[in-house]
Amino acid sequence: MGEFELIAQCFSQAGRSRTDVVIGVGDDGAVVQVRDGFDLVVTTDTMVEGVHFFPDVDPRALGHKLVAVNVSDLAAMGAEPAWLSLAITLPKVEDAWLQAFAEGLSETADYYNCQLIGGDTTRGPLTLTVIAKGFVPRGKAITRAGAKVGDYIYVTGTLGDAALGLKLVQNQVEVSKKHRAHILQRFHYPTARVALGQALRTIASSAMDISDGLCGDLPHILNRSKVGAIVDVSKIPMSQALKDSCDWQSALQCALSGGEDYELVFTVPENKRGSLEVLLSPYGVPISCIGRITGLAGKLELKQGDQPFTYQHSGYQHF
Amino acid sequence: MGEFELIAQCFSQAGRSRTDVVIGVGDDGAVVQVRDGFDLVVTTDTMVEGVHFFPDVDPRALGHKLVAVNVSDLAAMGAEPAWLSLAITLPKVEDAWLQAFAEGLSETADYYNCQLIGGDTTRGPLTLTVIAKGFVPRGKAITRAGAKVGDYIYVTGTLGDAALGLKLVQNQVEVSKKHRAHILQRFHYPTARVALGQALRTIASSAMDISDGLCGDLPHILNRSKVGAIVDVSKIPMSQALKDSCDWQSALQCALSGGEDYELVFTVPENKRGSLEVLLSPYGVPISCIGRITGLAGKLELKQGDQPFTYQHSGYQHF
Repeated sequence: MGEFELIAQCFSQAGRSRTDVVIGVGDDGAVVQVRDGFDLVVTTDTMVEGVHFFPDVDPRALGHKLVAVNVSDLAAMGAEPAWLSLAITLPKVEDAWLQAFAEGLSETADYYNCQLIGGDTTRGPLTLTVIAKGFVPRGKAITRAGAKVGDYIYVTGTLGDAALGLKLVQNQVEVSKKHRAHILQRFHYPTARVALGQALRTIASSAMDISDGLCGDLPHILNRSKVGAIVDVSKIPMSQALKDSCDWQSALQCALSGGEDYELVFTVPENKRGSLEVLLSPYGVPISCIGRITGLAGKLELKQGDQPFTYQHSGYQHF
Repeated sequence: MGEFELIAQCFSQAGRSRTDVVIGVGDDGAVVQVRDGFDLVVTTDTMVEGVHFFPDVDPRALGHKLVAVNVSDLAAMGAEPAWLSLAITLPKVEDAWLQAFAEGLSETADYYNCQLIGGDTTRGPLTLTVIAKGFVPRGKAITRAGAKVGDYIYVTGTLGDAALGLKLVQNQVEVSKKHRAHILQRFHYPTARVALGQALRTIASSAMDISDGLCGDLPHILNRSKVGAIVDVSKIPMSQALKDSCDWQSALQCALSGGEDYELVFTVPENKRGSLEVLLSPYGVPISCIGRITGLAGKLELKQGDQPFTYQHSGYQHF
């Protein structure tokens, strides 16, 4: 089967059918309409077999995660997801695998109101790249660069579940039957905080998504914003499943250094704090205030209640 | 070195610095301004070591080609190139290699007036994906779907040089000293027909770029347009270098089935033919009329002058 037929067959109808797609899969490029008065937001994420996922991963879950991870970046910028491109490098064509992968990708694209508009299929070691595109009203993207001294630091949902999920699929921990489904769901099927991200446009001074653990990612906001942060580890939100499955130290390590939660961390100025809970309550996603921005540029301080807290971060590094 | 530092160091300033880039490398995503009244065009191309390039390829040439190949897709749609994203998967970081690759990529991006706005760096087998974005006045993209019966078929430049170049670097042919530089240039440093592609917006009924040989690519126009074509192989433009380096049959095979020329093939209605040469003359790219569109949907007929011509196409297939 040729590469064109392969793409055409599995991916030509993937995701939501959008009216702003002039030309989708099947031409030299895709043509889409960006609304007048909006900026375009573009994100790129690659997943490599043996690095980002195991060879025996459920291809449907893989298709889901690839989309969710990219859309999460759009969410972190307050953008409305719209279009996806897929670059897929495959050692060989296995129909059943490809079909399941395409279904997972398509279902998740549809969930986020995205259409797959094109891409490239090549032969080689299994490597998957998604490029997600969305838009924000002109000038309204939330960046990593806007945090100011005194801003409050928030995270969505709970942290550390995905890291526990990784340990679970590697048989490094035991998780009670009661919690297994939740933990595996969090690892295999992360949720991008898309609606909440858009709501943050008028509230947050900075935001990003947490893919490499809070201690791996928050420093990016600090560096780009030229500020510091003090975070109270006793305020880090953790699920009952995580707390029940390991001791507090291990749970905290999952939350601070474990990857792939795809929750948002964001900062809010004092004068916007009042409207925060009201504005965000419709989205049904709990938020937790975990600290404040300081003037010590680039420095992330941890405390536990009133006490200094020492922690050795070992985040995920590709090299 | 972390992935973020790696990207930041080598690619943060790659290409032209454009005023429509609000946020480039370094955030969750890039933010760019699409001009009001324009459509966005998005293309994706992946190059895999051992499949699309040899391990010992000059990394500067590789950087060039990766950009040119993508920009060529934009050219085929009549789009003005603007922004690039790069997903790079690397087995390890070799500073000198990465530096040369980044320079080739940056120089070529600059040449086409493109800025690198973001991407992803991951560990794994060497795989390079570029996503190029550009724009066209709304509704003016040239597609593969617009060819009509009676339209004339044109190609730009000469065909087959890159295929000869591939044979040359594989030591399968000898090329005289006089022609070597030209042939290697055509293989390693293809030129995307960007200005000409934009000029075709008002003339061409369909267009695409030739990456898999004329006999591999023209059928895509035929299938999308639901038409056929008759092509006179004696009209296929070939360089003196190609004609001097092998017999006519071999040269023709390079032109019809060899990949990576990145010339354009396009169709022009009878009533636009008069203005064609005048409109395209400023671009200094020769064009050749090689045939006409017929009503036999999907059928590509070859002739040589007045005689039928039998040819077995063996195009490049990734699978």
